[in-house]
Amino acid sequence: MKYLNQQEAISVDEELFNDYKFSVDQLMELAGLSCAHAIADAYSSTSLKSNKVLICCGPGNNGGDGLVAARHLSLMRYEPYVYYPKRTEKELFKNLQHQAECMGITVSSSCPDAAWVENEFGLIVDALFGFSFQPPVRESFVHIMAVLQKSSLPIVSIDIPSGWHVERGPLSDTDIKPACLISLTAPKLCAKHLANAKHYLGGRFVPKRLEEKYAMDLPSYNGCDLFVRLD
Amino acid sequence: MKYLNQQEAISVDEELFNDYKFSVDQLMELAGLSCAHAIADAYSSTSLKSNKVLICCGPGNNGGDGLVAARHLSLMRYEPYVYYPKRTEKELFKNLQHQAECMGITVSSSCPDAAWVENEFGLIVDALFGFSFQPPVRESFVHIMAVLQKSSLPIVSIDIPSGWHVERGPLSDTDIKPACLISLTAPKLCAKHLANAKHYLGGRFVPKRLEEKYAMDLPSYNGCDLFVRLD
Repeated sequence: MKYLNQQEAISVDEELFNDYKFSVDQLMELAGLSCAHAIADAYSSTSLKSNKVLICCGPGNNGGDGLVAARHLSLMRYEPYVYYPKRTEKELFKNLQHQAECMGITVSSSCPDAAWVENEFGLIVDALFGFSFQPPVRESFVHIMAVLQKSSLPIVSIDIPSGWHVERGPLSDTDIKPACLISLTAPKLCAKHLANAKHYLGGRFVPKRLEEKYAMDLPSYNGCDLFVRLD
Repeated sequence: MKYLNQQEAISVDEELFNDYKFSVDQLMELAGLSCAHAIADAYSSTSLKSNKVLICCGPGNNGGDGLVAARHLSLMRYEPYVYYPKRTEKELFKNLQHQAECMGITVSSSCPDAAWVENEFGLIVDALFGFSFQPPVRESFVHIMAVLQKSSLPIVSIDIPSGWHVERGPLSDTDIKPACLISLTAPKLCAKHLANAKHYLGGRFVPKRLEEKYAMDLPSYNGCDLFVRLD
């Protein structure tokens, strides 16, 4: 299986929208749903010290995946709480937030306190930055990144561990160490730097022709599963 | 569990879009995916005389669910072939057709011959008419309805067995007798007239508040399952 570099990840994404004519709504729904399923596989709600999940959502599509995952997790015996500090005016994102709130999920723009996170939650989902991330972390996310870096809770990163270089992986010893990574569509190069982490592939929607064009050599999904375990 | 009448089904749908701010793209993707999963549960590709599935798509959202299900089935060891005679100019539907074709699925507007259907396929999916159907069947669908009525292959109907009255069920002895019905969101009254058929519920996206407003009393979905078996 191939690990994509940043430019390949960006090109694959663009082709899915421009050539294959998927809408962001469609693929974000499938991606976020596959994240919820992988999370349920990795951390059943009864195996955690609490079924409350802190989902940290960034300003882009990675954050959108987090908002979708939150909604599906709320239908699966988890209690998601979303931290979503920088919101866009895009209709889809406003609607994803509204849908989550209609499910009874709190969507907050106040950065949660580290001690409260440690006491309140059983799991953290990192949906802050995705494959288009370029360091450094912007000012408005420095505080939540510090909370994640210090937390003892398991962290599930969506697609890219936030703060990591998309190709070179962690940039310092203090970078987050996810307990689980869910790569979407295909893993990116940074995933080679995972240590002692569960690793899933989600986003079961890649057309064969696109897979072949990029020589992705994706593993087979089993039955109806929306994810494959890679580690 | 409640069986919705036609007006309730229409109102629930409208509220999902207008009040809960879901897009058609999102819910059609989730509905069609749940249909693919229920079909795989009811008819594993190896249990059929052929893994080729004829998917008959109508002009509205029921047909859109069929186009989505076709795409997901193609990723799950089935070979879907779509009959889609009356197409709309709506961007979403043109894109759903394009996505299916990019997966290598034939999307034809020529009504398949009954004998060819019988020889070629292992299963038929009826995605012709949904909960807004009002009899009689329009001219352009009379021929395919006759193929379905006479076929000995198992028929899986999406949401409503096509040609049936949404509340009163079959209107004549020649109406199709689906071997399997996949109700979406909540079953409609016609489902009470199923005989010797598998019955699934799909569309795991109903907010609790909406379920309660309509006293749907939906069964619990198991784990990550996108469907519940009702029969």
